[in-house]
Amino acid sequence: MIAETFASPQDVEQAFYKAFERADLTAMMAVWAEEDDIVCVHPGGARHSGMVEVRESWRQIFAQGPGLQFHLVGNRVFSGRMLSIHSVYEHVTVAGETRPANPVLATNIYLLTDRGWRMLMHHASPLAAPAASKESPPSVLH
Amino acid sequence: MIAETFASPQDVEQAFYKAFERADLTAMMAVWAEEDDIVCVHPGGARHSGMVEVRESWRQIFAQGPGLQFHLVGNRVFSGRMLSIHSVYEHVTVAGETRPANPVLATNIYLLTDRGWRMLMHHASPLAAPAASKESPPSVLH
Repeated sequence: MIAETFASPQDVEQAFYKAFERADLTAMMAVWAEEDDIVCVHPGGARHSGMVEVRESWRQIFAQGPGLQFHLVGNRVFSGRMLSIHSVYEHVTVAGETRPANPVLATNIYLLTDRGWRMLMHHASPLAAPAASKESPPSVLH
Repeated sequence: MIAETFASPQDVEQAFYKAFERADLTAMMAVWAEEDDIVCVHPGGARHSGMVEVRESWRQIFAQGPGLQFHLVGNRVFSGRMLSIHSVYEHVTVAGETRPANPVLATNIYLLTDRGWRMLMHHASPLAAPAASKESPPSVLH
């Protein structure tokens, strides 16, 4: 597979979540910059850095197969010339579950490399209290 | 108080944790860039963005007074011309408690403004499993 060249941070972000949904390890690793400095933090987890650790973390997650669907909400973007910083709420639907999972808050950082834009950092963290609680009356259909 | 000019991202980081330890709201807000784009995420919490929300989040935290001490471990830095991205483990000691709290993983992003370097983003997340568990035998003195 020839690595795709992403023309914008948005293209990388789209490819990242598509690879995540498909549990496609090759496609996932193709979005990352080939840098020792890449950093990946899964919700509640420790830091993975460098290609070997980051790849292994995704391999373990994808071993369960596909089954997640992502809907990004509240995107905030700060764009520099070489770096683009995105803050997004990931609303995740898990296959076979009717209730949405608690949202996850992610900081995604993209770097302009000589092979186009790539992901430099993904830092995802769980929300302790469901942000949607006010919008979800507790006793409808349950 | 005349706002300090920080000559490097490291200077901002030092001032940030000093203000945090002292629960000094004025000093804390002086480290942030005066941008609508600033983002602050406390461990397990939702996103605060813009000066008003970020300030209010620190006001609530600092209402409990000082009492935390930070020791940064495993710093990883990615520096661009205008942006500097730091990933650090915050080892926190709480006054009056003998056990260290679980480490917190933080992504700190600094921006070169026309008033020197300032903080653009602080994203802190809890570690679900204590990273130090293997190093801390469970039954010493307890």
